[in-house]
Amino acid sequence: MQGCAYIDDRYVAPEDAKISIFDWGFLHGDATYDVAHVWQGRFFRLDDHLDRFFASLARLHLDPGRTRAQVRAVMHECVRRSGLRDAYVEVLCTRGRPAPGSRDPRTCTNRFMAFAIPFIWIADPAKQARGVDLVVSDVQRIPSASVDPRTKNYHWLDFVMGLFQAYERGAETAVLVDAAGNVTEGPGFNVFALVDGVLATPAAGVLEGISRRTVIELAQAQGLPLRIGPLAAAELRRADEVFLSSTGGGVIPIARVDGVPVGGRAAGDFGPVTRRLQQDYWGLHEDPRFVETVAPA
Amino acid sequence: MQGCAYIDDRYVAPEDAKISIFDWGFLHGDATYDVAHVWQGRFFRLDDHLDRFFASLARLHLDPGRTRAQVRAVMHECVRRSGLRDAYVEVLCTRGRPAPGSRDPRTCTNRFMAFAIPFIWIADPAKQARGVDLVVSDVQRIPSASVDPRTKNYHWLDFVMGLFQAYERGAETAVLVDAAGNVTEGPGFNVFALVDGVLATPAAGVLEGISRRTVIELAQAQGLPLRIGPLAAAELRRADEVFLSSTGGGVIPIARVDGVPVGGRAAGDFGPVTRRLQQDYWGLHEDPRFVETVAPA
Repeated sequence: MQGCAYIDDRYVAPEDAKISIFDWGFLHGDATYDVAHVWQGRFFRLDDHLDRFFASLARLHLDPGRTRAQVRAVMHECVRRSGLRDAYVEVLCTRGRPAPGSRDPRTCTNRFMAFAIPFIWIADPAKQARGVDLVVSDVQRIPSASVDPRTKNYHWLDFVMGLFQAYERGAETAVLVDAAGNVTEGPGFNVFALVDGVLATPAAGVLEGISRRTVIELAQAQGLPLRIGPLAAAELRRADEVFLSSTGGGVIPIARVDGVPVGGRAAGDFGPVTRRLQQDYWGLHEDPRFVETVAPA
Repeated sequence: MQGCAYIDDRYVAPEDAKISIFDWGFLHGDATYDVAHVWQGRFFRLDDHLDRFFASLARLHLDPGRTRAQVRAVMHECVRRSGLRDAYVEVLCTRGRPAPGSRDPRTCTNRFMAFAIPFIWIADPAKQARGVDLVVSDVQRIPSASVDPRTKNYHWLDFVMGLFQAYERGAETAVLVDAAGNVTEGPGFNVFALVDGVLATPAAGVLEGISRRTVIELAQAQGLPLRIGPLAAAELRRADEVFLSSTGGGVIPIARVDGVPVGGRAAGDFGPVTRRLQQDYWGLHEDPRFVETVAPA
């Protein structure tokens, strides 16, 4: 696997990046992370990802033992060493191992890691061109009262069960619901729907995605009517346009929801709102306010 | 660290038991596990733990690539090689790594691991003798509609946040609630309360603990009135006796709930129901129906 990882204060090949099975990051999912992407040699909105990573760390009482400048430098260095022009760059911090015989997380030394690997699409360009098939799963997203979804975390079994439901129904991915049956988010993405001319996305119980924020800002700049609040599954099914937002590909059109073509369109024929947002999303990757070039060797 | 681990088809020292940071078992908490204990050279209720492990695997579409007899043999061998007389023995299966660039769990090769390490108490014998200080956290346990708690899993951030709440309040551990405010379970244990002469424990939203089952069976054999159903936090606070059940120590008395002595008793003075169940629990460790001797070298 191409790429570069940083672990135990060293840069290593991805194959050599391993953690103890006794680290609570593994045994208890006690960790947080963030993922930024590099496109054509430039990080996109890296400051926003760093803001979120440090906010997540604080909420979980985790200390990466590094300043923001040091974390940023490690991310740059991972990409530089990998030689990748388009990369998926993750930083993470685990609780570490407790003292022998202890179950007290305060006895752990937290551990910081990072890696840069080839860009991973939520849906590859071929699939994007025809649109993704989505189902509304009846699995409920882990609620905020249990685990704060703003803190990026590895509690994905609800998503994984949703994915298996999608496969059983012949679809490719799933969005989960909340206890009231409203749409929340899916594995690695937020969801948007154009309903009666208004672009809607859930407000609560979801990750505050950087791509989600980018879409919201673009919609505001375009003067699109926007509704950030509960999104009923029924609204998603009757929407004129539906798309996902993710660091893993930006704006990804949905072709079908629960087997029904979105907006009655043919596969690959997406609506104008999705098209324009997709175009503008990639356009921002040329905007110096949002990008920073990976430090050269 | 004393012990023995089994990973990649080999027995290794615990220090050498490491997994790739790219395994979904880590990056997505996509794994299940079970923990049995060995006391004085004998496994306790190993068949029940194996039943639960294979049920968990099936629910998550995980294949350990080993029969039940093989998993049992690995558990025995880990203990035998460790030389431990009292051990904490975990088996686990992770999703593994997806194909490069893929996000499809069906492309993963699942991975089976195991380890035996020195017995880990929920509360060590000294703490047990004076009783544990418990708080009722306002963190909600991840609900069954999101992640099935009968499938033993590594989604512990709710528990970890509960632990930090307990520490802030000067206590040692926490029990979480459900959306209705009823008591569920804590990090590594089920909860029992003697309320108006009835031994009560939550029915839903909790792991179906083997130690919990043992306590229920003992209570039935003793003719104790039993209620398996919703347990209000207020009932826990006014209970005559409160204890935890866990593979990590059996029946563990609670001294205080939210800072108030249980049943108005002095520290270390537990009620008769707790005492008798604790005695009977350890008595079963001599009962050939429940134990099996670790295979000798």
